[in-house]
Amino acid sequence: MLDARCPQVYLVSDGTGITAETLAQTLFTQFPNLEPAWHRLPFVQTPGRLASIFARAEAGPQPAVVVATLANVDLRGELRHSPVPVIDVFGEQLERLEQLFGTPAQSVSGRAHGMGDVSRYDRRIEALNYTLAHDDGLATQDLSVADVVLLGASRSGKTPTSLYLAMNYGLFAANYPLVPEDLNSGDVPHMPRGLRGLGGRMVGLTITPQRLAQIREARRPGSRYASLEQCRAECTAIQEFLDTWKVPHLDVTQLSVEEIATRVRDCLELPRGR
Amino acid sequence: MLDARCPQVYLVSDGTGITAETLAQTLFTQFPNLEPAWHRLPFVQTPGRLASIFARAEAGPQPAVVVATLANVDLRGELRHSPVPVIDVFGEQLERLEQLFGTPAQSVSGRAHGMGDVSRYDRRIEALNYTLAHDDGLATQDLSVADVVLLGASRSGKTPTSLYLAMNYGLFAANYPLVPEDLNSGDVPHMPRGLRGLGGRMVGLTITPQRLAQIREARRPGSRYASLEQCRAECTAIQEFLDTWKVPHLDVTQLSVEEIATRVRDCLELPRGR
Repeated sequence: MLDARCPQVYLVSDGTGITAETLAQTLFTQFPNLEPAWHRLPFVQTPGRLASIFARAEAGPQPAVVVATLANVDLRGELRHSPVPVIDVFGEQLERLEQLFGTPAQSVSGRAHGMGDVSRYDRRIEALNYTLAHDDGLATQDLSVADVVLLGASRSGKTPTSLYLAMNYGLFAANYPLVPEDLNSGDVPHMPRGLRGLGGRMVGLTITPQRLAQIREARRPGSRYASLEQCRAECTAIQEFLDTWKVPHLDVTQLSVEEIATRVRDCLELPRGR
Repeated sequence: MLDARCPQVYLVSDGTGITAETLAQTLFTQFPNLEPAWHRLPFVQTPGRLASIFARAEAGPQPAVVVATLANVDLRGELRHSPVPVIDVFGEQLERLEQLFGTPAQSVSGRAHGMGDVSRYDRRIEALNYTLAHDDGLATQDLSVADVVLLGASRSGKTPTSLYLAMNYGLFAANYPLVPEDLNSGDVPHMPRGLRGLGGRMVGLTITPQRLAQIREARRPGSRYASLEQCRAECTAIQEFLDTWKVPHLDVTQLSVEEIATRVRDCLELPRGR
């Protein structure tokens, strides 16, 4: 059976295979006319297991390709026995880096997405707990330890972005919904008590009223909360707040969580490598 | 200035740069004696911007390396002007895939971590909302739509794993804490009402009492909840429950969230590509 439009992609790793999957999916987004069938094969630790994957790839539909992220150098050597084409991600790149830096690569599996550096790992879990406890303005008393506090209207993407930042970068990411009552209490937009003293750690998420109404409508159809009028009033008040208090902000109308998170990291001068 | 131990790594992308960062960090875990300085440079869209990055890399400390994930083929062509070594992730691999499948790669930025496929993106956000609403047994009435329900003791890693599965794979991942009162009501461990009929969608997370006590102790020092005795009793009861009801389970004592998530996906025959 040969179906050139449906390549069989075997994601082979001695770890979780998350790197192989991320890279392969990214590469295949550039071939929108292909519909790859993904075969995730994580935690491959022995030549025998690898040989059985090769047999499966050979016996299955064609075309097939193995995308391998094998940290173990001996296992990587076995890739030469593959009956189908191989993209050996680590082999090619690690050799380049070895030459560049004049130092040999080690050969340890599961470094990237395992426990790895335990203190860094523990910090990510701690950050996630913090973010869950400080979602949606739930707790404002200890925002002082936050790495970042996201501000915006309800349903502007604060919660997913906070969780993403905590999970992936170990950032203590809180978020605070700016509600009209908070903002409209005087001539100039009021700074809610819980947000005072947060200086450069606040980032605003803005969104067009149309898109906001669309998102809210999906959750609470026909509600005042989802009405364009209400969304417009909130967006205006929030923009005024962000301008008055000179809070850096970004328009998230067209952005994914990953794109928002990337830009938030750029907005702040966040400590590196956390 | 030359410090071979601290290579300057320029992560250059016309998208978020998440693929470049994931891959580069994975590669550098194999060089534990190096302490790379990371320079994230996402959303690079013009040759001029690329040229200014090259100038910065050349003027900065050495050694330096550019790790590029540029989907745009013209920008990728500019990489040949780099004054420092380049790892052109896409160029090398996309050419391979073009040859393998006899079809040209397109050249569109931001496909991997942008909105991309909107329905797939919306599903991820929907999944995250579902998971937040069904964390820790908060709501059991609509577990019937869950893709997976994680079972385990309080603090066995259910919440981070659920969020990871929802965020990254768009899985409706609920979780349910098995508490001793739930389990000890008869001769055989009781199946809580909310979990009935979930068939093959339940996965248990087990953990050693020692590790559980350690995690709990960090949160509630000196409590009965964190005592080894209490943890031991809970772990025994949970194991008995999982065995009685033949729920597939995994020991997460040594596993990271990514590793647990990978094994959970393996445990279930989950629909692909969600």
